[in-house]
Amino acid sequence: MPVTLTVKLEFEAAHRLHNPSKPGDWNREQYGKCNNPHGHGHNYVLEVTVGGGVDPETGYIMDMKVLKDLIREVVVDQVDHRHLNLEVPWLEGVVPTAENLAAAFFRRIEEVLPVRVRLEAVTVHETPRNSATFRN
Amino acid sequence: MPVTLTVKLEFEAAHRLHNPSKPGDWNREQYGKCNNPHGHGHNYVLEVTVGGGVDPETGYIMDMKVLKDLIREVVVDQVDHRHLNLEVPWLEGVVPTAENLAAAFFRRIEEVLPVRVRLEAVTVHETPRNSATFRN
Amino acid sequence: MPVTLTVKLEFEAAHRLHNPSKPGDWNREQYGKCNNPHGHGHNYVLEVTVGGGVDPETGYIMDMKVLKDLIREVVVDQVDHRHLNLEVPWLEGVVPTAENLAAAFFRRIEEVLPVRVRLEAVTVHETPRNSATFRN
Amino acid sequence: MPVTLTVKLEFEAAHRLHNPSKPGDWNREQYGKCNNPHGHGHNYVLEVTVGGGVDPETGYIMDMKVLKDLIREVVVDQVDHRHLNLEVPWLEGVVPTAENLAAAFFRRIEEVLPVRVRLEAVTVHETPRNSATFRN
Amino acid sequence: MPVTLTVKLEFEAAHRLHNPSKPGDWNREQYGKCNNPHGHGHNYVLEVTVGGGVDPETGYIMDMKVLKDLIREVVVDQVDHRHLNLEVPWLEGVVPTAENLAAAFFRRIEEVLPVRVRLEAVTVHETPRNSATFRN
Amino acid sequence: MPVTLTVKLEFEAAHRLHNPSKPGDWNREQYGKCNNPHGHGHNYVLEVTVGGGVDPETGYIMDMKVLKDLIREVVVDQVDHRHLNLEVPWLEGVVPTAENLAAAFFRRIEEVLPVRVRLEAVTVHETPRNSATFRN
Repeated sequence: MPVTLTVKLEFEAAHRLHNPSKPGDWNREQYGKCNNPHGHGHNYVLEVTVGGGVDPETGYIMDMKVLKDLIREVVVDQVDHRHLNLEVPWLEGVVPTAENLAAAFFRRIEEVLPVRVRLEAVTVHETPRNSATFRN
Repeated sequence: MPVTLTVKLEFEAAHRLHNPSKPGDWNREQYGKCNNPHGHGHNYVLEVTVGGGVDPETGYIMDMKVLKDLIREVVVDQVDHRHLNLEVPWLEGVVPTAENLAAAFFRRIEEVLPVRVRLEAVTVHETPRNSATFRN
Repeated sequence: MPVTLTVKLEFEAAHRLHNPSKPGDWNREQYGKCNNPHGHGHNYVLEVTVGGGVDPETGYIMDMKVLKDLIREVVVDQVDHRHLNLEVPWLEGVVPTAENLAAAFFRRIEEVLPVRVRLEAVTVHETPRNSATFRN
Repeated sequence: MPVTLTVKLEFEAAHRLHNPSKPGDWNREQYGKCNNPHGHGHNYVLEVTVGGGVDPETGYIMDMKVLKDLIREVVVDQVDHRHLNLEVPWLEGVVPTAENLAAAFFRRIEEVLPVRVRLEAVTVHETPRNSATFRN
Repeated sequence: MPVTLTVKLEFEAAHRLHNPSKPGDWNREQYGKCNNPHGHGHNYVLEVTVGGGVDPETGYIMDMKVLKDLIREVVVDQVDHRHLNLEVPWLEGVVPTAENLAAAFFRRIEEVLPVRVRLEAVTVHETPRNSATFRN
Repeated sequence: MPVTLTVKLEFEAAHRLHNPSKPGDWNREQYGKCNNPHGHGHNYVLEVTVGGGVDPETGYIMDMKVLKDLIREVVVDQVDHRHLNLEVPWLEGVVPTAENLAAAFFRRIEEVLPVRVRLEAVTVHETPRNSATFRN
């Protein structure tokens, strides 16, 4: 089953790279300006790839409108225009690096996909020049 | 042989998501506004990746100009400025979803590549935010 | 009042360059493959610029969400996933070139803006490489 | 003197649309989710255009490296990875809308340009789909 | 006549910022690494805007295919895959900064446009982050 | 260990496709205009992907600022604003096709990564429409 479908969605959020279980010095040294106390922000692009076979009647792996609606419900609507360290219960205790966000989003999206659809990859683009990918 | 070469080409076409073997109600429910009777359209981007080893004399997997010319001949020139449901004989009976287009284009490109070149992947971008990939 | 605000919205439509008051030969010669009978399509990008002074309390020329909603109502929702020659009453008799679309969209958007906001420019991008702009 | 030079720089910041001289209800109604208490953020793109005549010896309006260094000094380095409402002294009391940021950045850049160079325009892109421009 | 048409074309060229009428020291100080003796290069994007009124029969300011063919003939085909300091007769004696290229290209394009079409602007993008514009 | 981190860096260089061990005729036939004697150039985009597991304390595969600094040191600073055939000792004898550059850059970056980080892929984009990837 060699076909995959990829969609991109956007959200705008603030975050701060900070590990609260570590002292301030460790955090400042580790994260530099990304540790500034009031945070900074990004226009995040969330890229999601699914596989699992094309339905011969519809020609779809799955309806991409349905896929986008699911992703909006379990991820985008909960992080958009939010501060990722302070306002998202399921990110509590997670340092919101691109790597950790990709993993957290992967787990949430995976749970809500239809049975016959497989989540292949989730990429979180922080900027047009850096991103992290979590692959199945 | 870990190296691959990727090229992108563009074409502008109309299409309609419609399965003619199904009743109108099924089609309207399945495809929503993508089933509007007169179709809509996209600036499609076709992304093609090939592998097969780098020729030590030329430094090429294959000349990318030759690769682009082949893709233009068997795909782009036949779909550009066309209605994909009505004017492309080799797409007859195919619902022109991104998934089905990627598969159909893959088969046509694969047939015309030089023997030592392997077609790795074909991606069809319908918009900057959705695409389907067919992988070898 | 030197400040302007610009927003971009997207829609996907089919069109055909064809002047019905002219014979077929004239149309084929004038428009080439853009005159193909079943049309082709684009991911159009509509770029709208407004001016008129920044409200000192809100810091807005106007709320860009309100602006986008107005543009969606009078333009985008009426042309998205449509065939511009066949399904849009207010484009009847208009050859849907980028130039004519920019002018038609300008007139519709101008009518619904708040009194103190001035429509400065409307640009219609047919592809990332061509566009037309109608300026006040 | 019809030639202008344009450069783009990027910064990543958090902000919150909030007018502290107004009650909470007014702010929530006016700004919606952009008023969320902990702010959100953007990958801002700052676009600066200068004119003033091309030096016949260098072929430059001004050296674009020098121009970028000046903009970094008086704007980018002070807002990058910062919360615009809380950490930038010269933005105190300014609701950080795109319109107000464009005006504030314009004034700071104008002051440090060489005498014979004229600042023509400053555009602040909050996202790839919205921006504000302050023109001379 | 408020409508304009804009097209973009690309070319790939080498150049070196060097004023041959000046000593080596002056050039090295003025241009830094852009003065390296063997040059460097860019994927240039050339953006051309024309006005002059929309033909009511065609809906065109001018046929954008014809416009692109003219620009290719007098500019793109002469600079593409060339070293701008060494291989383009009409750039002899011109330091190939973005500013000077915009002016030189403007003059060549202006000469070949149809009588009723007015060249409004030529922009030369050296990179996605810097450009120069020559306006009528 | 399913997570990867990807960064993009840019450099601007001249190159010429030419195999000095072959006669001029062979080179002209093989490479066409890419063999023009004075070379041409590109805004190259270098895309680097690493894996190897996320550090649970930092949330990083590795600090992307450190990764970018390493890539700048061993690749970007040595090729930026240079002629790739003439000024880069470690590219001597290499025809600078995208395929060969991806392989050469991969080897240099691989050597300087921290022990626990694995280089997954290096992509060299010559233009927005063609690229080569070297994968581990």
